[in-house]
Amino acid sequence: MRLTDHPWPDVEASSTDLALLPVGSTEQHGPHAPLGTDALTAEAVADAGAAATDREVVVAPTIPVGVAEEHRGFAGTLWVSEDTFRRYVREVVESLAHHGFDRVVVVNGHGGNVAALRETCARVTRDGTAYAVAFTWFDGVSSDLPMGHGGARETALLRHVAPDLVREDRVEAARAEGADRWGEWVSGVNLAYDSASFTENGVVGDPGAGTAADGEELLDDAAAALSTLLDSVADRPVGGDE
Amino acid sequence: MRLTDHPWPDVEASSTDLALLPVGSTEQHGPHAPLGTDALTAEAVADAGAAATDREVVVAPTIPVGVAEEHRGFAGTLWVSEDTFRRYVREVVESLAHHGFDRVVVVNGHGGNVAALRETCARVTRDGTAYAVAFTWFDGVSSDLPMGHGGARETALLRHVAPDLVREDRVEAARAEGADRWGEWVSGVNLAYDSASFTENGVVGDPGAGTAADGEELLDDAAAALSTLLDSVADRPVGGDE
Amino acid sequence: MRLTDHPWPDVEASSTDLALLPVGSTEQHGPHAPLGTDALTAEAVADAGAAATDREVVVAPTIPVGVAEEHRGFAGTLWVSEDTFRRYVREVVESLAHHGFDRVVVVNGHGGNVAALRETCARVTRDGTAYAVAFTWFDGVSSDLPMGHGGARETALLRHVAPDLVREDRVEAARAEGADRWGEWVSGVNLAYDSASFTENGVVGDPGAGTAADGEELLDDAAAALSTLLDSVADRPVGGDE
Amino acid sequence: MRLTDHPWPDVEASSTDLALLPVGSTEQHGPHAPLGTDALTAEAVADAGAAATDREVVVAPTIPVGVAEEHRGFAGTLWVSEDTFRRYVREVVESLAHHGFDRVVVVNGHGGNVAALRETCARVTRDGTAYAVAFTWFDGVSSDLPMGHGGARETALLRHVAPDLVREDRVEAARAEGADRWGEWVSGVNLAYDSASFTENGVVGDPGAGTAADGEELLDDAAAALSTLLDSVADRPVGGDE
Amino acid sequence: MRLTDHPWPDVEASSTDLALLPVGSTEQHGPHAPLGTDALTAEAVADAGAAATDREVVVAPTIPVGVAEEHRGFAGTLWVSEDTFRRYVREVVESLAHHGFDRVVVVNGHGGNVAALRETCARVTRDGTAYAVAFTWFDGVSSDLPMGHGGARETALLRHVAPDLVREDRVEAARAEGADRWGEWVSGVNLAYDSASFTENGVVGDPGAGTAADGEELLDDAAAALSTLLDSVADRPVGGDE
Amino acid sequence: MRLTDHPWPDVEASSTDLALLPVGSTEQHGPHAPLGTDALTAEAVADAGAAATDREVVVAPTIPVGVAEEHRGFAGTLWVSEDTFRRYVREVVESLAHHGFDRVVVVNGHGGNVAALRETCARVTRDGTAYAVAFTWFDGVSSDLPMGHGGARETALLRHVAPDLVREDRVEAARAEGADRWGEWVSGVNLAYDSASFTENGVVGDPGAGTAADGEELLDDAAAALSTLLDSVADRPVGGDE
Repeated sequence: MRLTDHPWPDVEASSTDLALLPVGSTEQHGPHAPLGTDALTAEAVADAGAAATDREVVVAPTIPVGVAEEHRGFAGTLWVSEDTFRRYVREVVESLAHHGFDRVVVVNGHGGNVAALRETCARVTRDGTAYAVAFTWFDGVSSDLPMGHGGARETALLRHVAPDLVREDRVEAARAEGADRWGEWVSGVNLAYDSASFTENGVVGDPGAGTAADGEELLDDAAAALSTLLDSVADRPVGGDE
Repeated sequence: MRLTDHPWPDVEASSTDLALLPVGSTEQHGPHAPLGTDALTAEAVADAGAAATDREVVVAPTIPVGVAEEHRGFAGTLWVSEDTFRRYVREVVESLAHHGFDRVVVVNGHGGNVAALRETCARVTRDGTAYAVAFTWFDGVSSDLPMGHGGARETALLRHVAPDLVREDRVEAARAEGADRWGEWVSGVNLAYDSASFTENGVVGDPGAGTAADGEELLDDAAAALSTLLDSVADRPVGGDE
Repeated sequence: MRLTDHPWPDVEASSTDLALLPVGSTEQHGPHAPLGTDALTAEAVADAGAAATDREVVVAPTIPVGVAEEHRGFAGTLWVSEDTFRRYVREVVESLAHHGFDRVVVVNGHGGNVAALRETCARVTRDGTAYAVAFTWFDGVSSDLPMGHGGARETALLRHVAPDLVREDRVEAARAEGADRWGEWVSGVNLAYDSASFTENGVVGDPGAGTAADGEELLDDAAAALSTLLDSVADRPVGGDE
Repeated sequence: MRLTDHPWPDVEASSTDLALLPVGSTEQHGPHAPLGTDALTAEAVADAGAAATDREVVVAPTIPVGVAEEHRGFAGTLWVSEDTFRRYVREVVESLAHHGFDRVVVVNGHGGNVAALRETCARVTRDGTAYAVAFTWFDGVSSDLPMGHGGARETALLRHVAPDLVREDRVEAARAEGADRWGEWVSGVNLAYDSASFTENGVVGDPGAGTAADGEELLDDAAAALSTLLDSVADRPVGGDE
Repeated sequence: MRLTDHPWPDVEASSTDLALLPVGSTEQHGPHAPLGTDALTAEAVADAGAAATDREVVVAPTIPVGVAEEHRGFAGTLWVSEDTFRRYVREVVESLAHHGFDRVVVVNGHGGNVAALRETCARVTRDGTAYAVAFTWFDGVSSDLPMGHGGARETALLRHVAPDLVREDRVEAARAEGADRWGEWVSGVNLAYDSASFTENGVVGDPGAGTAADGEELLDDAAAALSTLLDSVADRPVGGDE
Repeated sequence: MRLTDHPWPDVEASSTDLALLPVGSTEQHGPHAPLGTDALTAEAVADAGAAATDREVVVAPTIPVGVAEEHRGFAGTLWVSEDTFRRYVREVVESLAHHGFDRVVVVNGHGGNVAALRETCARVTRDGTAYAVAFTWFDGVSSDLPMGHGGARETALLRHVAPDLVREDRVEAARAEGADRWGEWVSGVNLAYDSASFTENGVVGDPGAGTAADGEELLDDAAAALSTLLDSVADRPVGGDE
């Protein structure tokens, strides 16, 4: 049940304690993929996961702006500081818990959010407010398509869930001018703090390598992984796991 | 241009400095209207305003959770603290300004956000980062329909922009059991901090009083008012108006 | 009982749980009225209210600086940020509650403080520390004198409570050069963040329109309204009104 | 010139850069002295200092609540956290500096404020916003009367500036039951965090030891010391003294 | 040059802009290894790196407590919140930069610090205060010894740099009762927030697998990697790498 | 027992509730004494105190950077803001208390830390988390050697505990060019915020006046004072001393 679409008595009638909170980002994904990629994919995965599980689960609205200052070199990228992001996510989770939805899976679509979400979920869990974990969809699937940024995996999923937003006429240039690797590495350290310093067009990887059918498979995989995760989350104690 | 739907080169090609940032809330709107009402209406007004103006304007994604603790007594209401809300909005505005979109109209759908948005917009304006104001759609139209909460004005607009989400079968009960007035007032002071203390079903006003046609008119009015506002905003100095 | 004037055993001997906390501002009020207007009037109203009620009530000292950055264009205006103001007021209320004075009416003399006080009083109330509301005197009286800024209502009250501080020789110029309306409005939005942008001498309204006798009546009205409010506050539950 | 008493054009006509900011506390001072002692004395010293110097100086309104949690054991004591106190004072100083009053002497009446004021004044000075120092009146005079708390020095000054507020009928008991020393000391460390743990009635020292004439002398001494300090402050560079 | 050991004129005589800041943790490392393991190893690597490079470099004192709440289940583990840790490290880096040491490599010995250090280094770099990166020694070497926690890699290094602190008599039990893997994983998500939930004695991996000679090799490898990193850092622009 | 040197089971086996937390500073101490003086001396005193007492006590690792911005004019001085220092110390104390070490003596080596430590220890004590006090070694001994800065007392102690780090060849110049008094005083107010404004070489006092034998005596005195303090701390109630 998407909270956005229902009046409050429908929510009150629910007896679940499971919630999904999709979190995205509004940031460059190369010349071919929309700025909203990470929010669109997080939301699609959350919806698919809610459909895939037998458990009742409420789905919160998608948080659209995250930790993305590293992409500030590309027009239209929006971001908040890590601190503000952590607070915003944390308090949304706390308000879910207020209503009894105190087992929360944050469904994340952006690599830059991962550390902040881990910290936030640990905090609310240790406080005993809720048991929360973050599921980053592309880390939860076992696909052969490489991840990159605006690369094979994300573009494939977009082709399945939002094909109109993929500029196929730009994919060829996107792959040609994209970078092979994220970052500039020396001695195990990434020296770069801005993606513009290592990718000219914002792409890392090959956006042409994955089809809409691959995207459908990715979505099914992610939904299944999320469903499995919900089974585990349903069994966790709330109030700390010391 | 909706940022969510476009790749970064489209945004870079834009020469405008005007941006709209829709801000909603996820909160109870009575037994008949969805929790997402304020986000849905804010987004609809922002899109309509962008269409109504001759000026180029970018539209940021909608911030879905705001200042709504007063509705915590009703299931599914989500909220963040005022402080976190101010930070989140402020930093999104600052990232818009980073790309040159430094005249920002926050398009607001929720009364509980008004004070926090005024403070936030003042802050970024006085800092010289951007010129920002908040347009709360129901305060910008000259309609005979009373506002209330989940009442005539909001329900009418919903009937136009999201008719499937209005539970018409519950409207009769919603109007019968709703409150006549927001709050509990003594000597000019509202004694209540929770809406549940003065409305049993969350409604204030009469959700049956406005039709989809009224809603269409409301949207046109709001779009026109927003367009007029953009003309004024386009002329304001950025960097303080001392 | 004014806390400032009594040793601690007098306070300990009190059995009330009611407290008044006057809050003002130090800010321009036109060429004729002193910078301390809002603190002077808040204190006068608090004292009059304490005298008017049959209930025992302690009166805290007046907080002299509030949210007034909008008047920074005029010499001598002092201010703190909204955040600092909220914290200062909140912690003073919490220390009142520590001693059992946990039903607190903040008696406010400044429009710029209203939103911050509402947020602060809501916070301590929801936390269960105290039940607190803010009474802004000019919003609690039913006078025909318009409010403005340094206008009829405030000047009349000053003529009653602090006549020596009103520069009557400047009133004529003050009225002639003052503004008719607070702010610059388009589509329901105030575009201005600094009063200097819409009033040359800081005045809004007509400071000549109210007499000392009007001021006396205003004070009586305000005291009666505050007394009525205290009756209601005495009956509220402390610990949240969910 | 007291800011509180003057309209803004009087302040604008001033050409000084010197300001005094009195800071007190509302806290127990034994059974005989009022809770407002520290604010009353700070204000009296500031006024006397402004009268004693040949230099033009503006006097800000008195901040009435400071760092006094140590006296929470006695009814009526108000306090804010150190952090909030520092912010409040700092931002008031910053708003003074906004108008060109960027050499600020905080005139302090409370020992518990000393460390927080030193930190705050250092901060604004190092930031280059203003040059600020805190003058604690009882540390700036060379009197034979011991300080204590509600003891000889403070009671003497009160007898001069606010005799009606000293309960002379309680002085005998106050001295009899008061403590000889502030704190509980072992190895140079004060083990106590609450004054109630080492003084039963809140007094340290002998409130009967100083007369009104002594108080007058103290005020003259303090005014002279403050005047001398203003001469030095007038010569300090603003913008850091590295 | 270790700052701790030198008077200020020695530091002033230096012309380098390179600094190392060792950061550790005080946390359980199994029954055989001391709580100070991460600080000891970070400091050893920093010293070895300073010796290995031809460049002049100052070495700051070691920050001994980091982000280690996950180990709170084991006695003696100390920690601060992520936020406090970030602030502490950031401000130490800023004070290094104040003296011209504005190319800073944080030499880190603890996995739990990695995300916080990345965020902190990004912040000071983007602010233009310094160019900073974090080098986590066990991620910068190419050893066959597995990492774990209190496992082969750390124990080997300890055997070389602080053999007296390794309780060899407990190693056998440590390996027998330790866990094979860090965390409890489902769908790519670690469900655990406390190490006590997946390792009974705090160990992950085999502390018996690495010798003191292995440790010496590890230290040489780490020193060489750090030296290489310093060459790259010396060439980075300070003031952002957009 | 030094936490740094022991594995967790050793700590768990302890039944004490007493802990020492050494806190220093990394700051100039004249041309002859090392930047680490305050950390070295605090650690030495903590170790000596732990040895001198009959009570079991754990010793936390030394916090090396404190409140020292006043020395920023001298190369190599490191510092954090008072706020960050307070948080860091407070949270370390809280983590000690988590394991039952909830009677904590902070052993301090730096005058600039005193106020911040008093505030921090008061906070955790009033919160009921722990009973904490700060012991500043040079305020706890009764020596004839004057304190100063890098002067007789500190240099003597260094000559005993870290003789290799004292540059005896520079002592003569250090004493000749040092200042006689800390600060610039007018009317009881120190006008200076930077030590560089009143001491050219960073020294206050005479570093030649104390011998290694004096230092040994100082250490014994400090250890005895700390031991006595621990006896008192062991008897204090934890959970506030109201």
